Amino acid sequence: MRIALDAMGGDFAPGPIVAGAVEAVLDREDLTTVLVGDQARIEAELARAPEAPRDRLPIVHAAESIAMDEKPVEALRKKRDNSISRSWGLMASGEVQAIVSAGNTGAMVASALFAGERAKMFLPGVRRPGIAAIFPSHQGPIVIIDVGANMNAKAEDLYQYGIMGSIYAQEILGVTAPRIGLLNVGSEDDKGNDLTRATRTLFQQSPWSSRFVGNIEGRDIYEGHVRVVICDGFVGNVLLKAGEGAVEFLFAAIREELARLLPNLSPEAGQKIVGSLKGLKSRFEYEEFGGAPLLGIRGACIICHGSSGDRAIKNALRVAFTMADDRINAEIIEQLSSKIPPSDDVPGAGV
Amino acid sequence: MRIALDAMGGDFAPGPIVAGAVEAVLDREDLTTVLVGDQARIEAELARAPEAPRDRLPIVHAAESIAMDEKPVEALRKKRDNSISRSWGLMASGEVQAIVSAGNTGAMVASALFAGERAKMFLPGVRRPGIAAIFPSHQGPIVIIDVGANMNAKAEDLYQYGIMGSIYAQEILGVTAPRIGLLNVGSEDDKGNDLTRATRTLFQQSPWSSRFVGNIEGRDIYEGHVRVVICDGFVGNVLLKAGEGAVEFLFAAIREELARLLPNLSPEAGQKIVGSLKGLKSRFEYEEFGGAPLLGIRGACIICHGSSGDRAIKNALRVAFTMADDRINAEIIEQLSSKIPPSDDVPGAGV
Repeated sequence: MRIALDAMGGDFAPGPIVAGAVEAVLDREDLTTVLVGDQARIEAELARAPEAPRDRLPIVHAAESIAMDEKPVEALRKKRDNSISRSWGLMASGEVQAIVSAGNTGAMVASALFAGERAKMFLPGVRRPGIAAIFPSHQGPIVIIDVGANMNAKAEDLYQYGIMGSIYAQEILGVTAPRIGLLNVGSEDDKGNDLTRATRTLFQQSPWSSRFVGNIEGRDIYEGHVRVVICDGFVGNVLLKAGEGAVEFLFAAIREELARLLPNLSPEAGQKIVGSLKGLKSRFEYEEFGGAPLLGIRGACIICHGSSGDRAIKNALRVAFTMADDRINAEIIEQLSSKIPPSDDVPGAGV
Repeated sequence: MRIALDAMGGDFAPGPIVAGAVEAVLDREDLTTVLVGDQARIEAELARAPEAPRDRLPIVHAAESIAMDEKPVEALRKKRDNSISRSWGLMASGEVQAIVSAGNTGAMVASALFAGERAKMFLPGVRRPGIAAIFPSHQGPIVIIDVGANMNAKAEDLYQYGIMGSIYAQEILGVTAPRIGLLNVGSEDDKGNDLTRATRTLFQQSPWSSRFVGNIEGRDIYEGHVRVVICDGFVGNVLLKAGEGAVEFLFAAIREELARLLPNLSPEAGQKIVGSLKGLKSRFEYEEFGGAPLLGIRGACIICHGSSGDRAIKNALRVAFTMADDRINAEIIEQLSSKIPPSDDVPGAGV
């Protein structure tokens, strides 16, 4: 398996990106990671890892890179020789089977749509790819799809996101027969807007009706009764970023509170509390899955958080490897074309 | 000033609702709170407060009440004599100048639209009322509007929400010349969907252009650089409820962590930590403002959280009193019809 890794994407690139690639290829002998980006800078990083199997870490030079805060479409037009477009080019030509980047998400998605003919880039039957983010819940990780690839989603898109998210949750998160919920403003059938009503009808008439539990509200996400939450990319993106903002805000408040509290505690008690909080914060970061997959494309694509360290990159490469393996995509293709309910379903099962 | 209070609305109604009303009228001699709901149950609660000035706590009987989880429109149709519809009826007939409820939000909004002719219920020039929720930020409380009154908002609605939210933030939250941001998926001008692009254009061509800072992303909400965030009711409602869910989830995780930690700490240290956390959680609950105003209606309407205690109800009555005072509504009417920039504006000021 050959995977393209955008070596220039991420807040701290290329350092931890290249380090993650080295760890990943050391871990798997059947993996080749193509490092895409500034050749000299990548070479410099590789020089720090004499143990790296260089034959499985080829470099594809790209003279430019797109910054995290650049306007995606404009940047893609202006910087033709950037590491993201170059990586997708490798996908389009079949030189790699998957792509991983911790760079500009908008550019990653836009570039996927530009890279080649849709029929060549998307899985058969897929209307528009969607980004699946992983959220924590009381029952374990859940999937929210789409969190930003598609700003004008139709009911048919959300239906496909439900199916693709469900297969991802099952195969990668290990959830058995994950239930699908439609993010909405209330639980009643007729709640929401035209999009939610049309999506509901579509699911109820589909082979997936027994997996679909109907509407779920924002506050129920974290309960985890539903492991796949579908929404259009605008709502999902706001939800994802506001969630990050809320957690950061809360931890900032906790740190402030601790600064007041710690001088009144013994150093030993203080250490225990600080350690405990660090463990807590890590529960909100699903580094083990490496990042958010862009579902619906051929092969696999994982979009990592900008702040990803080597461990997240290594894990993203591992997950991309599994996903690019034909089984998951074959399942998606089959289910999107299928009129038969998934075999593990109990018809009529509710929440 | 006469305010209708839905005595049956809220998770613990009527106990803390009536208690809050008693405190409010004891606090203000110029306030009469009309208690709307089951007469016998309200009488029973009032009997516990012999100090209550009964002449300023009249009861209007309503035989039925709408539960928190009932389907709003269906419930309003089935239960004609419910406390919410009865309260809006008092507003429509001019018997009260404001309305406060901790009951079913959907029923509160739907009932407002049913209660009388639009021209009688809405402020002149208002297209659709919007619910303004108060969120915490590093700079103090901010307003997010709309969080659930209008699921099919047009650009003109969001424009009005910006103006109304701004006047509310200034007059009630005490923010000087609050800046308005459009909730979006990125900071670039052309980001988002048709609604956000149209809203942006509308603001840029309006007298309020200097107050409008453009797009803000979910994670920036908590920074507080923008004190009024506008969005359509679907997105706002998801955001509000998901935010509540995230905070609850995080505090549940903290409690779990504490349960592991406390046995290893001295009882004294444990007490300090628990006290500290309680203080922290209260920062996320803006009880001092009583609840979320429904902006754009004549008089005032405050929708309180279902879990509101007597303090929140008392504060909601106080805020409703201030808002129903003509000054704020007069300002809204003037600004909605005005082509002249607000006087405290510095044209061209950015974030």
